[in-house]
Amino acid sequence: MTTATTTQESVINKEQLLRHWLGHRHLTRKTIEAFPEKELFEFSVGGMRPFAKLVVELLAIGGPALKNIVSRNTNSYNEEGIIVNTKKELLEKWDEETATIHGYFNQIPEEGFSETFKLFGQYEFPIYENILYFIDNEIHHRAQGYVYLRALGIQPPFFWERQA
Amino acid sequence: MTTATTTQESVINKEQLLRHWLGHRHLTRKTIEAFPEKELFEFSVGGMRPFAKLVVELLAIGGPALKNIVSRNTNSYNEEGIIVNTKKELLEKWDEETATIHGYFNQIPEEGFSETFKLFGQYEFPIYENILYFIDNEIHHRAQGYVYLRALGIQPPFFWERQA
Repeated sequence: MTTATTTQESVINKEQLLRHWLGHRHLTRKTIEAFPEKELFEFSVGGMRPFAKLVVELLAIGGPALKNIVSRNTNSYNEEGIIVNTKKELLEKWDEETATIHGYFNQIPEEGFSETFKLFGQYEFPIYENILYFIDNEIHHRAQGYVYLRALGIQPPFFWERQA
Repeated sequence: MTTATTTQESVINKEQLLRHWLGHRHLTRKTIEAFPEKELFEFSVGGMRPFAKLVVELLAIGGPALKNIVSRNTNSYNEEGIIVNTKKELLEKWDEETATIHGYFNQIPEEGFSETFKLFGQYEFPIYENILYFIDNEIHHRAQGYVYLRALGIQPPFFWERQA
């Protein structure tokens, strides 16, 4: 394990990174809410997964990944156990995982963010890089949901609305 | 101007943030390359802008925004002056702005990232938040390009390919 972050060069602190992520989770929640029930689970473009399925991927990453990082558990990635059949269930699971993320994120010590960890027994990167990847992946799939909404004639939430 | 980042809590340093952004710019470049010439400028889904037009937005933000941040210039946002008619021109302009970003980013002192600045005379946030927004916005629009590519039957680049 290496600690590459030096005092002098740091530009984003732990609380700022958490707030950034939670802001994105708030926007993703609003995006889920914007979908009609049926289209959330069935509609897609270009043979891609419906938005609910993309959100299940996000649910299988965020909370489980942070829990694994804190406990140094190398459990495999697994979305099979996440069963959601309605928008209400998906939103409840989303809120549950947001709370999980919040709790475990706070347990990572500042110096831990530059340590490397083999996430899901497979992705060996500094922890801060893995966390940026989780956020990027959420932005990426949510943006695909925006296209689905546009294709359905529905106005997506404003991209800059991040207030939790 | 306030300096909120404390030594103790910092988790991402300046060089890491730049590398993160340049990795994303590399992936966006590959996404532009994946489009056929005509569809890059004409194809879209759900009445949205074609991918070239989304990329012009990114070009009007990244380089110009960093230049304004460094010079504390509150010029308005402006994409009117960016004229690109071919994929080749778009890629050349992309590379030019990547170099501009690289140069100006390095001129921001570490302590400058937590200072607030009214970007484009309009968006007053800490500079690190504005920079995260530029990256998020790039991921967001690139992901929409991924849907266009899928709708065209074209495999997008792998999301995790960020090597510059």
